[in-house]
This record gives sequence, C-alpha cells and structure tokens, in this order.
Amino acid sequence: MVFNHKIRVRYAECDRMGFVHHSNYALYFEEARTEYLRNKQVTYKELEDEGIIMPVRSMGFSFYYAARYDDLLTVEVTIPENPSVRLKFTYRVYNQHQELLSEGFTELFFVNKSTMKPLRISKELLERMV
Amino acid sequence: MVFNHKIRVRYAECDRMGFVHHSNYALYFEEARTEYLRNKQVTYKELEDEGIIMPVRSMGFSFYYAARYDDLLTVEVTIPENPSVRLKFTYRVYNQHQELLSEGFTELFFVNKSTMKPLRISKELLERMV
Amino acid sequence: MVFNHKIRVRYAECDRMGFVHHSNYALYFEEARTEYLRNKQVTYKELEDEGIIMPVRSMGFSFYYAARYDDLLTVEVTIPENPSVRLKFTYRVYNQHQELLSEGFTELFFVNKSTMKPLRISKELLERMV
Amino acid sequence: MVFNHKIRVRYAECDRMGFVHHSNYALYFEEARTEYLRNKQVTYKELEDEGIIMPVRSMGFSFYYAARYDDLLTVEVTIPENPSVRLKFTYRVYNQHQELLSEGFTELFFVNKSTMKPLRISKELLERMV
Repeated sequence: MVFNHKIRVRYAECDRMGFVHHSNYALYFEEARTEYLRNKQVTYKELEDEGIIMPVRSMGFSFYYAARYDDLLTVEVTIPENPSVRLKFTYRVYNQHQELLSEGFTELFFVNKSTMKPLRISKELLERMV
Repeated sequence: MVFNHKIRVRYAECDRMGFVHHSNYALYFEEARTEYLRNKQVTYKELEDEGIIMPVRSMGFSFYYAARYDDLLTVEVTIPENPSVRLKFTYRVYNQHQELLSEGFTELFFVNKSTMKPLRISKELLERMV
Repeated sequence: MVFNHKIRVRYAECDRMGFVHHSNYALYFEEARTEYLRNKQVTYKELEDEGIIMPVRSMGFSFYYAARYDDLLTVEVTIPENPSVRLKFTYRVYNQHQELLSEGFTELFFVNKSTMKPLRISKELLERMV
Repeated sequence: MVFNHKIRVRYAECDRMGFVHHSNYALYFEEARTEYLRNKQVTYKELEDEGIIMPVRSMGFSFYYAARYDDLLTVEVTIPENPSVRLKFTYRVYNQHQELLSEGFTELFFVNKSTMKPLRISKELLERMV
C-alpha cells in the first residue's frame, strides 16, 4: 500500500542556501506516517493515550535534489514488510514537478509507556496498519 | 541583577535571507533564562520534577538588526520586577560586535502540574530567583 | 477581511508538558499569513524573487489555553489597518472545539533585497493585499 | 582524530515522551561538526563566503537510549576516512553519565555555490580538516 501526503515547505524550514534544511525531513516523514495511519483509522495520539508509544529506533535519509521554499511536496509512504515488534516505514519525497528529491526510512518500536519495555501489539491493530 | 549567556547561532536557525529566523529568539530566550536560574541555584528541570511548571503567558519581541549564521550572541537577562504568581524576564541580544540586535520579554506563570492551577511559590524560592 | 487557515499540530512541536511549545506559534502565524497572501494572489516567494523581502520588525503573543498534539487548529488572520511601509497582521488561534487558545501580531517591513533599505511598495500591490 | 563537543538539551527539543525528539540529532551533529572544523581552523562560514557549500548527501541515525531535558550531552565527532569529493563524519552521543545514547553519520559534498556543481577542494584544505 502506498499513501501520499502533501506538505507545503515553510519559510523557516529553509536555510541560507535557500534549501529545506536536512533536519526537517524527519518532521515531514513523521507528519506523513501519522496521516498514513490516520487513513487506516489508527490515530497515533489515541495509541499514546492507550499507553503505547512508538520511539524511533533508527532512520536514514538520502538527498538527491533540494526542496525549496513554498514547494508543494508529496511524501509517499510505504510499509515495506510485515510489522512485528518493530514497524518500518519508507518514504519518497517529490516536488510539484514530480522530481524525486529524497528517500528515507524510519524504524519504530512499540513500547509500553508505563514500563518502557517493548511490547507486541495486537494482531488486529497490526492488520489495520498494513 | 543582569545575567549574560552566550549562544552560537546554528546553521539551521538561519533562513533564506541569511538571518536568524525570528521564531528562534524564543528558544534563545528560554535557554538564557534557564541558565540565569541555574546560576541562582534554581534548576528548572528540578522545579518540574517537584510538580511546578512554568508556562509562558505572553511574550514580545522587537528586532533592530539581524543575527547571522555563526554569530556569537550574548543574551542579557533581567528580572525587572519582583515576581508574584507570575515571573517576568526581559532580554537583550547583542552580537560579537556589541550591537544590540533585539529586545524582548517573556511572562511566565507558576502552575501546579497535577491540578494545572496557578500556584504561589515559596518566598524562599522567589528570593533565590532575584 | 478575515482569513482562516487550518494547521495540524505536529508531534515534534509539543513539549514535555504535552503542549505546543510557544516558539512554534511564530511558525503557525507565518504559514497562515503566507496562505492569506496566496489567497489574495500575492505569493510571498514571488515577492522575494522580485527583490522585496519582508523581515519581521516586532511580534507579540498571548497564550490563554494550550494547543496539544494532533489538534486541528484554525488560525484566523486579519490586516487590522492599511499597510504603508509596514504591514501588520493579527492572529487568533482556535482549536477544533472552537476554543480561543492564543492571540498575537506580527509587524513586517518591506525591504529592498539588494540595498537592504526600507521601500514603499506599489499602491496596486498594497490594494491586492487588503 | 576524535573531537568532543558539549551540548545542553533545550526544553523545546523534548517531546511529549520527555525525550529529545529524533529530528534534533541532525542539529546536534551539525553543531558538533562545525566546532570540529573550527578546532581545525576551518570556519564553515568562511568556506561559504568563499563560494564552497557543503550539502548533506546522506545521513543515518541509531537510537539506543533517550536523551532528556537539561542533559549535558557529549557529541564525539570523527572523520573515519580520507575525504575526497565527499566528506564523511561519524558521531556518538553520550549523556553526563557516560551512557552511549545514539550513533550516526552524515556524508557531505563539496559544491561550488555559483555553478552548484561538485568540486574538489584543495589538498591543503583537506589536510587541515583531518
């Protein structure tokens, strides 16, 4: 399943070179996967309210072309494999000219908020996600 | 009492114009008042751990000259009046050429973290702050 | 003229208290006034490309209630008086329950990008803005 | 050569979980490599003023333990191999208890600011960097 989410580049997200600063891609990915999940009827906020947090365990980014101020980006989100105790998302970022600017991934864990121990979420929830 | 805190401007904090984006001054002020308090033996983190939070109630900023990438700023912090249920800080930001770039203030409240109600902190703590 | 712009609160914009950190309101205001102008057929990016930049001269914020993660905010933007060499915007931020969370203003200047001197923009452009 | 740089965690950099949000590590790495270079008498700002920019081509992060508000982090910076047209930095982040919290890398390119083409920097400059 591929999900597309649109993000307008903010002025403050661009640096002296006029490009989106690389640190902001982690924010774009996070916004995009939140909307991916919402589209699957999974609200990340509700997960947290139920005691499940999902810290990022690792992430990676490749940058091919720069995004610029006021660009209307499309972030394409995929879950490339079946989630288990961890959940991997991959992302592709395109600008309004359909140019591929960047690719990346984030790997998250399911963690019990009270015990801070990894947890295995219900099969039903996993299936809703993919 | 005037307290000075030095901050080196980060690359990501500068925008397309090459100037520090105005949103970052709130971060500089926060860092500076935290160090002001630490200098008075008041650790904001400890206050929170003891159940006292200090949300910002209002803030204001005037910008005269731009701060730029890699500038070594001095943030001058003052508590202009005796704190009560609220605590006001004023700030002046200078660059390494002693030019006054910006002025501002933040007004904070003392709030009980559990009840989320305003609270009056102990006289002893207030006196340590000023 | 009142213009409304919707913003979904990002996870990274919330702090240890669970509230939107106050520094982010400057970003919300900026995004909202950009969309206000776009709605008037004035693209801020095009202004910059034509050599006009609009630095913030002053800004102020009042916070009444906290915005929280995943809230769908409405930022109401108004230009309260006729612009001259400077342009003032006022803002009101509401959450999805129509509660007024915050108010503020930003005052911008029109500046010639090459000379960095204040400039008076054309009457035609001013009229399009309001 | 290993270089250590200290960073105090800002309040705004922590999220609802109370942890440093993962997007901020890119900022910490950037600050640390800037100071690494300054220590080698290479000021990144001067490089840019001379027409050399260094965009990030790729980056990766692993997170083991969370950094928290007010932690005094040590970022250990290394250049693991001889730079050519690209320059790789690796980083380790420790807290004040000498716990390894995170590891990562950034890979940068040397680019001519006017032509936006990759460039080979002088041998003398490369040698100063490592």
